[in-house]
Amino acid sequence: MRLDDLPTPSLVLDRTRLEKNIARLQGRARDLGVVLRPHLKTAKSARVAELAAGGRGPITVSTLAEATYFSRHGFHDITYAVPIVPAKLDTAAGLLTKGTDLKLITDNEVVAKAVAERGRALGVTFHVLIKIDTGLGRAGIAAESAELLPIAEALRGPGAALAGVLAHAGHSYNAGSIEEIREIAEAERAGVVKAAARLREAGHPCPIVSVGSTPTAIHAAMLDGVTEMRPGNFVFFDLFQLGIESCEVNEIAVSVLASVTGHHRERNHLLIDAGGLALSKDTGANRNAPGTGYGLVCLPGGKVPLPGLAVVDVHQEHGLVGHQRGRDAINKLPFERFPIGSRLRVLPNHVCMTAAMYDRYYVTEGGTEIVDEWDRVNGW
Amino acid sequence: MRLDDLPTPSLVLDRTRLEKNIARLQGRARDLGVVLRPHLKTAKSARVAELAAGGRGPITVSTLAEATYFSRHGFHDITYAVPIVPAKLDTAAGLLTKGTDLKLITDNEVVAKAVAERGRALGVTFHVLIKIDTGLGRAGIAAESAELLPIAEALRGPGAALAGVLAHAGHSYNAGSIEEIREIAEAERAGVVKAAARLREAGHPCPIVSVGSTPTAIHAAMLDGVTEMRPGNFVFFDLFQLGIESCEVNEIAVSVLASVTGHHRERNHLLIDAGGLALSKDTGANRNAPGTGYGLVCLPGGKVPLPGLAVVDVHQEHGLVGHQRGRDAINKLPFERFPIGSRLRVLPNHVCMTAAMYDRYYVTEGGTEIVDEWDRVNGW
Repeated sequence: MRLDDLPTPSLVLDRTRLEKNIARLQGRARDLGVVLRPHLKTAKSARVAELAAGGRGPITVSTLAEATYFSRHGFHDITYAVPIVPAKLDTAAGLLTKGTDLKLITDNEVVAKAVAERGRALGVTFHVLIKIDTGLGRAGIAAESAELLPIAEALRGPGAALAGVLAHAGHSYNAGSIEEIREIAEAERAGVVKAAARLREAGHPCPIVSVGSTPTAIHAAMLDGVTEMRPGNFVFFDLFQLGIESCEVNEIAVSVLASVTGHHRERNHLLIDAGGLALSKDTGANRNAPGTGYGLVCLPGGKVPLPGLAVVDVHQEHGLVGHQRGRDAINKLPFERFPIGSRLRVLPNHVCMTAAMYDRYYVTEGGTEIVDEWDRVNGW
Repeated sequence: MRLDDLPTPSLVLDRTRLEKNIARLQGRARDLGVVLRPHLKTAKSARVAELAAGGRGPITVSTLAEATYFSRHGFHDITYAVPIVPAKLDTAAGLLTKGTDLKLITDNEVVAKAVAERGRALGVTFHVLIKIDTGLGRAGIAAESAELLPIAEALRGPGAALAGVLAHAGHSYNAGSIEEIREIAEAERAGVVKAAARLREAGHPCPIVSVGSTPTAIHAAMLDGVTEMRPGNFVFFDLFQLGIESCEVNEIAVSVLASVTGHHRERNHLLIDAGGLALSKDTGANRNAPGTGYGLVCLPGGKVPLPGLAVVDVHQEHGLVGHQRGRDAINKLPFERFPIGSRLRVLPNHVCMTAAMYDRYYVTEGGTEIVDEWDRVNGW
């Protein structure tokens, strides 16, 4: 099967680029002296996880559906890195009793007490990391917070055990320069190291000291005192990561294959069958890479985007391809290069959102032949 | 089962509101003297289709996956209202040979010829509507276009047959007033009626004269010469439709059930487990209804939003609930009303995008009891 035989829209994964991206971050982890615990919220695929986690190594997930799926695929060291709520503990306990070392996170003493209590009631030990906020301002407590030690205290067994501390410097996505990303990475490192030190001084073991985001994993100068990092997006990259200089355009490993469905010469746009659902409506990449619209456009066998073109607007199942905003919009599009029924590939703005609409990847080795199909786990 | 027993995030559908919304548009169709051919791109559910199409009546779909699903569920009068490309004709022919009257659309003479040719090769007759643009500027030709008659000519059998003309005034979503929506509805009507007249004058039968969008279906003054309308969003409504006065807030039939996962008093926000995937990143509703953010927030049993609160930011699996933009952000949130683990319901900005992330609806009759589960067909 070849790209031309696929239904459209479809999600295409270039395994050659994927493997290179993974090798790069594995090298970073080695150089920095930390374990790579990849976040599978982006790929949601056991086949990608096998590559990124070096077999069945430690992984991170964002939903219990992912935890269950990866456990079934033989991954047994899993951190569920979204704050736990009591109603989800029974599902978590089910995974523990199947032999999966599932670690939870919390930033709240009341929840920590409820976790320990439920662990005792169910006869299991929930291993829990305390979430530290180092500037993102989403979940987590500050490293200096007075709440840190009471949470750790609440996690004393039986029923629970403190597994460590964890931060996510997601605000690195908003940084204006690599220098700023480096500062954010250092604050992320310093925050978890400080929290770990406070816990250890108070007599709590704190085996895991975890940081992670793709930009900070790529640009951190050093990670002394940290034990692991959890980047996720790096397996694929996207136009957002391109805009903040995490990658080159020819490292973006996932694209959406679409068919040209219309020529509108008087309106000077091409229509494709990849719209708001197939591409997502995330336009965040435009801040750092103006004119990316809803994605940049490549030929099916192309390695880099066609200059000056973008998906400039989307409806649910329609995408409009035209001149990038800010470019000369008077020139006519080269319609004859893109006959109706011909195919294009769209590089996604934010691949985590785009990929979530598909149940599988069609895998290439960089060419137009489909060498494999890999499934995904969506939903919750 | 009750709302409190559901996993979160989940998609909740209030059947009482759904039935009322459907009755309203069925009444509109009756009053306007046209057939209601609901667009199932929003609901993607056979159970919703049964109500909206009055049993197994005519429907509209946006993907061949929907066409196949609804055909399997006994719907046999289906218009696939996205421009056809030759590679999709074999799947379409498969549905025809199963007895489904699947109608296609095109706006291009080359495609029309390819359709007829493929129909002859496969021994089927593809029924095709010509797409007319009445101002949206997406797909379609103008009613006055010189391309109209050649397309109709290309659709002469064998292999193809002209089924009619079809327009979608999606630009009604951008209207600034009901008066403007009424003007757009009249242009939509006049466009297809004119195209039909030109075709008939040239000796082409043109049985179907089709218009459709939720705002124009609701506000059109008259639809003389039109045979059917294809609104879709009206079954559920959302904050966007609220903003353009298509509905009242207590008519929005779908919400996302979420759990409170964090209290951040110093940052004055609640965290919930419904983020960018669970709610979608479509923020279009904010243009007409400023401050809706990524959705408005209700109590689980609540009928209307909590005043002043919204989902103000999202990450992949996290939503931040805070004061609506423009409201007094100094007041502390009433954290004690929303304990961690308690549930909230979020009214979606754009329900077509939000619902697409879920494989089912949990159905209520307006209360907190779950009376049914209805499946959805996602993907392509």
